[in-house]
Amino acid sequence: MRPLFPLALLATLTAFAPAAKLPGTADVIAASKPVDWRRVDPANMLYMEVGPGTVIIELAPQFAPLHVANIKTLVREGFFNGATINRVQENYVTQWGDATEKKSLGSAKATLPLEAERAAAGLSFTPIRQRDAYAPEVGFVDGFATARDGKGQAWMAHCYGAVSVGRGESPESGSGAELFTPIGHAPRHLDRNYAPVGRILEGMELLTALPRGTGQLGFYEQEAQRVPIRRVRLGTDVPATERREFEVMRTDAPAFGAFVDARANRDRDGFMIGMGGVDLCNLRVPTRPVAKP
Amino acid sequence: MRPLFPLALLATLTAFAPAAKLPGTADVIAASKPVDWRRVDPANMLYMEVGPGTVIIELAPQFAPLHVANIKTLVREGFFNGATINRVQENYVTQWGDATEKKSLGSAKATLPLEAERAAAGLSFTPIRQRDAYAPEVGFVDGFATARDGKGQAWMAHCYGAVSVGRGESPESGSGAELFTPIGHAPRHLDRNYAPVGRILEGMELLTALPRGTGQLGFYEQEAQRVPIRRVRLGTDVPATERREFEVMRTDAPAFGAFVDARANRDRDGFMIGMGGVDLCNLRVPTRPVAKP
Repeated sequence: MRPLFPLALLATLTAFAPAAKLPGTADVIAASKPVDWRRVDPANMLYMEVGPGTVIIELAPQFAPLHVANIKTLVREGFFNGATINRVQENYVTQWGDATEKKSLGSAKATLPLEAERAAAGLSFTPIRQRDAYAPEVGFVDGFATARDGKGQAWMAHCYGAVSVGRGESPESGSGAELFTPIGHAPRHLDRNYAPVGRILEGMELLTALPRGTGQLGFYEQEAQRVPIRRVRLGTDVPATERREFEVMRTDAPAFGAFVDARANRDRDGFMIGMGGVDLCNLRVPTRPVAKP
Repeated sequence: MRPLFPLALLATLTAFAPAAKLPGTADVIAASKPVDWRRVDPANMLYMEVGPGTVIIELAPQFAPLHVANIKTLVREGFFNGATINRVQENYVTQWGDATEKKSLGSAKATLPLEAERAAAGLSFTPIRQRDAYAPEVGFVDGFATARDGKGQAWMAHCYGAVSVGRGESPESGSGAELFTPIGHAPRHLDRNYAPVGRILEGMELLTALPRGTGQLGFYEQEAQRVPIRRVRLGTDVPATERREFEVMRTDAPAFGAFVDARANRDRDGFMIGMGGVDLCNLRVPTRPVAKP
């Protein structure tokens, strides 16, 4: 497989790998420059307090503007404070919201048009040139795994750790008051049918290491089994002293091309054979907390 | 996407689905015949008692004959009784064995040649005709997800719930005394580098809903965190009254082709758009316990 990154960058990177091998992912990250990273906008971050920790989510208004706006309204008005994790289905999803389904949505909308896909035009899409079972073209937009149909439509993929909108059977029945994340092998058949609104940057283990629900679809059968969500806050509403800052590798920068190649050709640390390919959902975009000054 | 199953079977199946849609997976299973299923051989089953339940594993000697034979020796001599789950790494693997790495392997071999792949000839391979990032050809052998390089080599894929052999950096350092299973998006870069020996038929949630280890690579840092494995028995050593019987859909029978098509074209129960494709590791082969008479 031909390296995706420019030879000039390869020359820099091979300084770290004396053998005739491609650089590894650690080499790529070590050789990256500030310009290869972007700071996550606190206006698009959710802090969700669950169990002993906090799940940090980055919202993606470029994919689902109506849903993201509605979720921000719900969060600001405290809708998710006291919500619960209601469903943990093995090798599928963890889902949260108001278990009674009766809590007022306040000034948020109760239903929205489905935003499962959108026009590809206007998104900064970087293809990764890998074969994919679900779409002719896959890659990344602003750090979010994305697929395209080659006919003008694009959608965020339901990879492990994506955050998407639960709804009823009708496609227009979702609001963002019920959210879920894939916790097993990516359920990509949800693509184009459900509306992803973001991805989890940190704290995924708070949603995956939970007892599986024994009811239908993995819902918890007893009220006491539901896991409390103490509070959800928007990043801009978190006091400066409590705020977390994150950097995500720019998926349209040269370093990311080198990262993809490194993942597609692992041949060190006990690996003899690089497979020469990598699945879209196995490309976890490098994400790191920024140390406070 | 053209249906993979014969039209005669389609005629039978569409009786269940009056609309002009492909049959769903439930329709396919309902319409299947006894000949579409095989009984799992108790000589290739492991009963691993963990926490409140039992993990049932089917071994695959056709892929890793030396490792499977060695594991059977270890099991019969009680090596795994009192072993522990030592590592749970988020979106990667759960791993178990002897945490001290000092327990005698008895009459089992301490190291074996790597059995990460084998000659494709001699395996009953059914292709699924789906695009795959890691291999030119993917399908199933006796219910095990399998890839081929088109040049005569075949290997079991590291899908969610596969059981594979832990080892050191040297490819020939494994024995089967240390085993792991993928618990997140399939780490297919392990293919051809690590030796799968089977897959989990039941009880996967006993290995996934565990606290993630906080040490390097997700190892538990405290002895008390390790999860005890009370006992592991070979199916043929389990008394008849305690035995569990399982049926697995034959992956070389027509019903399985219909099952693949149903998964690749979900268009009911809230799904509007069938994606026209399915990832190898999203094809969980129908597996069911057999009711006792």
